[in-house]
Amino acid sequence: MESLDEAPGSERDGESNNQEREDQYETSHYKSPLFSDPWKPYQRPRAIIKEWLLSLRCCLGSMCGLEWYGYAALGVMMAFLSFLMDLSVTKLLRAHQWLYVKLEGNSLLQFFCWTLYPACLCAVASSFSHNICPFSTENIVLLFSQALTLSPLSPPCLSLVLPLASPDFHRPGLTSAQGIPEVRTMLAGIEMPHYLSLTNMFAKFLGLICVLAAGSTVSLGKVGPLVHLSTMVGAYLSKLCTLIQDNKKDKGAGEMLVVAAAVGVASCFGAPISGVLFSVEVMCSHFALRHYVPCFFSAACGALTSRLFTVWSGDGETLQALFKTNFPTALPFYPLEILLFALLGLLCGAVSCCYLFCHRWMLQFTKTNTAFVKMLTTEKGLYSGLVVFLLASVTFPHSAGQFMASKYTMNQLLTSLLDSRPWSSQHQNASMQLQPEPLSEWSSSGSPVYLSLAFFLLMKMWMLVLACTLPVPAGYFMPVFVYGAALGRLHGEGVAYVFSFGGTSDQQQVSINPGGYALAGAAALSGAVTHTLSPALLAIELTGQCSHAVPVLLATLLANALARSGQRPSFYDALSISKRLPHLPSLKKTCPRLPSTTLGQFLGVKSVQLQRAAGSAEIQHAVKTSSETQIPVVESHESQILLGFVLRSELLIFLRRPKTETLEKHLHEVCSIHPTSVLLSPHNTVQEAHRILSVLGDQTLFVAERGRLVGLLTWTQMKKILEDLAKEI
Amino acid sequence: MESLDEAPGSERDGESNNQEREDQYETSHYKSPLFSDPWKPYQRPRAIIKEWLLSLRCCLGSMCGLEWYGYAALGVMMAFLSFLMDLSVTKLLRAHQWLYVKLEGNSLLQFFCWTLYPACLCAVASSFSHNICPFSTENIVLLFSQALTLSPLSPPCLSLVLPLASPDFHRPGLTSAQGIPEVRTMLAGIEMPHYLSLTNMFAKFLGLICVLAAGSTVSLGKVGPLVHLSTMVGAYLSKLCTLIQDNKKDKGAGEMLVVAAAVGVASCFGAPISGVLFSVEVMCSHFALRHYVPCFFSAACGALTSRLFTVWSGDGETLQALFKTNFPTALPFYPLEILLFALLGLLCGAVSCCYLFCHRWMLQFTKTNTAFVKMLTTEKGLYSGLVVFLLASVTFPHSAGQFMASKYTMNQLLTSLLDSRPWSSQHQNASMQLQPEPLSEWSSSGSPVYLSLAFFLLMKMWMLVLACTLPVPAGYFMPVFVYGAALGRLHGEGVAYVFSFGGTSDQQQVSINPGGYALAGAAALSGAVTHTLSPALLAIELTGQCSHAVPVLLATLLANALARSGQRPSFYDALSISKRLPHLPSLKKTCPRLPSTTLGQFLGVKSVQLQRAAGSAEIQHAVKTSSETQIPVVESHESQILLGFVLRSELLIFLRRPKTETLEKHLHEVCSIHPTSVLLSPHNTVQEAHRILSVLGDQTLFVAERGRLVGLLTWTQMKKILEDLAKEI
Repeated sequence: MESLDEAPGSERDGESNNQEREDQYETSHYKSPLFSDPWKPYQRPRAIIKEWLLSLRCCLGSMCGLEWYGYAALGVMMAFLSFLMDLSVTKLLRAHQWLYVKLEGNSLLQFFCWTLYPACLCAVASSFSHNICPFSTENIVLLFSQALTLSPLSPPCLSLVLPLASPDFHRPGLTSAQGIPEVRTMLAGIEMPHYLSLTNMFAKFLGLICVLAAGSTVSLGKVGPLVHLSTMVGAYLSKLCTLIQDNKKDKGAGEMLVVAAAVGVASCFGAPISGVLFSVEVMCSHFALRHYVPCFFSAACGALTSRLFTVWSGDGETLQALFKTNFPTALPFYPLEILLFALLGLLCGAVSCCYLFCHRWMLQFTKTNTAFVKMLTTEKGLYSGLVVFLLASVTFPHSAGQFMASKYTMNQLLTSLLDSRPWSSQHQNASMQLQPEPLSEWSSSGSPVYLSLAFFLLMKMWMLVLACTLPVPAGYFMPVFVYGAALGRLHGEGVAYVFSFGGTSDQQQVSINPGGYALAGAAALSGAVTHTLSPALLAIELTGQCSHAVPVLLATLLANALARSGQRPSFYDALSISKRLPHLPSLKKTCPRLPSTTLGQFLGVKSVQLQRAAGSAEIQHAVKTSSETQIPVVESHESQILLGFVLRSELLIFLRRPKTETLEKHLHEVCSIHPTSVLLSPHNTVQEAHRILSVLGDQTLFVAERGRLVGLLTWTQMKKILEDLAKEI
Repeated sequence: MESLDEAPGSERDGESNNQEREDQYETSHYKSPLFSDPWKPYQRPRAIIKEWLLSLRCCLGSMCGLEWYGYAALGVMMAFLSFLMDLSVTKLLRAHQWLYVKLEGNSLLQFFCWTLYPACLCAVASSFSHNICPFSTENIVLLFSQALTLSPLSPPCLSLVLPLASPDFHRPGLTSAQGIPEVRTMLAGIEMPHYLSLTNMFAKFLGLICVLAAGSTVSLGKVGPLVHLSTMVGAYLSKLCTLIQDNKKDKGAGEMLVVAAAVGVASCFGAPISGVLFSVEVMCSHFALRHYVPCFFSAACGALTSRLFTVWSGDGETLQALFKTNFPTALPFYPLEILLFALLGLLCGAVSCCYLFCHRWMLQFTKTNTAFVKMLTTEKGLYSGLVVFLLASVTFPHSAGQFMASKYTMNQLLTSLLDSRPWSSQHQNASMQLQPEPLSEWSSSGSPVYLSLAFFLLMKMWMLVLACTLPVPAGYFMPVFVYGAALGRLHGEGVAYVFSFGGTSDQQQVSINPGGYALAGAAALSGAVTHTLSPALLAIELTGQCSHAVPVLLATLLANALARSGQRPSFYDALSISKRLPHLPSLKKTCPRLPSTTLGQFLGVKSVQLQRAAGSAEIQHAVKTSSETQIPVVESHESQILLGFVLRSELLIFLRRPKTETLEKHLHEVCSIHPTSVLLSPHNTVQEAHRILSVLGDQTLFVAERGRLVGLLTWTQMKKILEDLAKEI
């Protein structure tokens, strides 16, 4: 309803009009709703503060658009949230470690400490976030209730929908875990209003802290929830900017969401450049370069703030890379090692295919297995607790955990894997005790590091897939990154071992750097799982190591090639499809009939229309039955020749006039009939219609055949069409 | 004409059909034109080789699409060309240095050696490339001749065009220098066929070597010409792939051009990631993410090859960064230095505005000054020689050159500027002679380094602007990058000097790293001049220094903010506008009436159309007068109601039938009338029409109003419209 009083062409040439508009706001700011309440008390102080605020706004606005302050604020706030989260998580992890060490000597108590602490945390996180913020559930219900009430579905379709919308179908466990699939659906133009309310933010925030504090037992990350938090903050800031600017254009909201998604990723990694690029790759299929600068600006503000926080909190003296490595720069690797890096890339691609297959199978299983569905619907907390208890028992350091370096936190794990010194040679020289630290956990059991690494990889695979079913807010990028690092490390250690036989001199052996393989493996596996290339850059940014840029990129490319072959869906695509989100790019990969689906198949019911000579009664009826802002006008109801459209707002103004005046008038005498812009044809495919809708912004598009009106297409209808298609999979 | 026998809908769902098509090719390859000539001699050996090639093709094709081999080949070839170029340039530069040193003692001979060598090289480059490959001139003539013959211009418009198309208007000097404006115009969908012929490649290649061998006197780079070379090679490889695949889709050509542009930049910098991103930022306003993987793949192949070449040629032991720096990693900078980096960013933004203003003024001057135009038209070689002679005299080491470190090549200049040790402190301790190398040229005159740097900046500004007028193939990115590094260095040295007073202990002073400021300055200035952010990443990749990522990004962002304020055109936009290229994004910045320009203003002449009941005579006439592949069909010539379109190929088949058969038939009986896809309206703006044309690929779009046909829109027409708009500036 906000765009009621907007001129029909205003959206089209928005960019050029910005300057003019801003000038208008400058002169009309005294009419702003914020500052026009003369009946309130304390006239004098309020007037002074008003004056002050107005001059501040003028001053800020004279330097650059107010939205830029919004972007900066977004970056800073996300950095602050991320820092706060890291701080709390560190404290909680330390408390756990302290307790565990204190109980040294009593294995049973240690076992309970090791298992119950994360189990309770996750159970709390699960119950908490789902009792306070059950919006993901609501969301699904909402989608289906909309589908039931609004869509022009025929009865057989209804029967198809109903079982899905039954209570059994509320799979909140799986729907709340990730943020990225929902956010990218929104960025593709589909509105999901409940998803962005700020009230849920704190529930999600606290839930995430609990999950992260469960540590490497559950080994979950924070990308998805942080992106969700970021879009919530972004939507709020965007509203604030609009309020301050007294600005009715809502183009800013979309842009702010794009920026927020990028900042969410960037603040999570502490890597501004690759964060933005990762977000671009995951979120969109076409990226508008005018978003580039806002995204990088906001991410840079965030990165700066987060590193300054680190400095001020005393963790580091200056702004440095997150995982500092000490790779030798003189001779990072031999040219022929490139082939081994390529081999690692292919290996990671194969492992990613295996992981994605298990993940898809698990998603399918949780959807179809009745016991599972019931458990996840009614006893989320209990389920989370049980699963985490199982995972924690497996990783208990006195049992299998000793072969998995389970005492390490995620960060320590990554740091140990990226170490540049070969473990195998250290193991041989362990008696010399020169550099025993990085080895301590990986060979604490006394078994060779190869076995430890292989066991780690074997166990973590099913643990990761199982952890994906947890109904808690968590991200899955970082665990995959660590898994890839372990895979790369194993490969690298193998290479170092083989080379140690080949080269007789010690010098040869030392120059093989297994840390480089770990880096390449991390980038390649996480890239293959998400079908992106930016993890290659992320690996470089996280470690501050440029020397391995080319091999890391090569490994990521090859892993991607393998993972993308055969149109397999990526991790996020699989989640989108499982959640039945109306997201076209992920539908493309699974709906075989999509390319041949035309618009005509979905234009069932005739839309409300007016004829040129319509009287006031017909107009009244049209306004009552239609909620569209643009109502099409045809020559006559018989000929159906489309003439253009009238604005609902103009009709409302006309209807407000006295009856005597309106009675005799016809539509074409009282309203201007605006010419239509682009016309679609029913023979257009859904993909084409989606693309044109994206290109032209949120207009109403008319569908006509041979000049005759056939239907309307808006984002609401596009959403319905996509949902219908998603249901067929 | 290639798409004559294509079904009308085949372009739309191209992606999904690829697999099917490839299967078809597999089975139909024996019909391929390459392998079907049974009348030729040596049947047996040819059959064996054929068999061999076919099995090779099958084998290659079974792993991935043949275009991927094309991408890899493109990367490798560009790396090879780049390496060959660098090698030749190094030899030529060494020869010059050797001669100069040999003449030590005789200043006059040294002067002639210093000035005549580059002057001759540039004169040769200029004459050579313009006599052998004068396509850029041709191109302009072609554009205008097209405009004269084809466009529906009214007489006043013609009088506007004619003086421009007169011989005086051939400004080859300015049109051949850059490659990026033309390439991005092509990527925006406009065809420029003469620009990509492979025959001109060698002329351009040799010309570029000559220009680069002129050294730091002229201080020109190689980005633009390498991009041009790369697109030439790409276009050739794309044709080759199409031939081998026996594949009529030409979607591959467009993709190959995008990849080629990216690889050109990447191979020039030896930086795969930032090269691709720079190309994305400069070339497009919307980037399709499906190009991401091919671009990075090709660039990675190129980067790998070029570094392997370096290793094999003995220059380096392994694959390393191009300009290796030795920044201290323990404490790269103090947190509060961020503010100084921000200040540097603003400074660079201001300098970039100044440079771009001078550049635009110079472009205008060379276009309007009669003497200049005459000189550039007739005596290109002489002009180049004279300008370079002037530049070289200024930089002669025994005159002003001693204050400008003019003995350094571009690479040495950059390396010296990025050095992490403050020069000022070294100057004080010069007697100790511990690290005298990096200082040698900058303080060879004995004057303080601040003065040298300031003098360098002052002189280089006008020298750069003057060098831009040279009619030689050359790039302007690297000179700006070096200039920015010098600016940053001056700032950094100043900071180090001030800090040396502030901190009493020596430790404080040492930790200020002016090299970091030089890096930030280089990225910020080159980013501001080109309106891009990727130079920030380029700076990191070129030096292998991640520690300064955040300050470099911040400086680049601020410089960009200043440079972009007030809708100023970037360096490449200014070139596009000056060359009157039909490139919409650069038109946006200079044509104030563009957003309000509707399509209706350009649809002058009625297009060829057929009525539903047209007889064979009318069809014959339509086929003769129109060259479009899709001919619109209307209900009748009176009503003009658009029904759809018929394919020209179907009409031709119909007309080939015997006369007696065709005489009685009407159009709707003999041809299928295909329904139209998206319909435009004359009220659509040109910008909207351009966007929809880009989104839908190269189709013919019909323009209709109230169901009645008004006109056609193809890329050819869009090109004319944009050229008409460009002329008005």
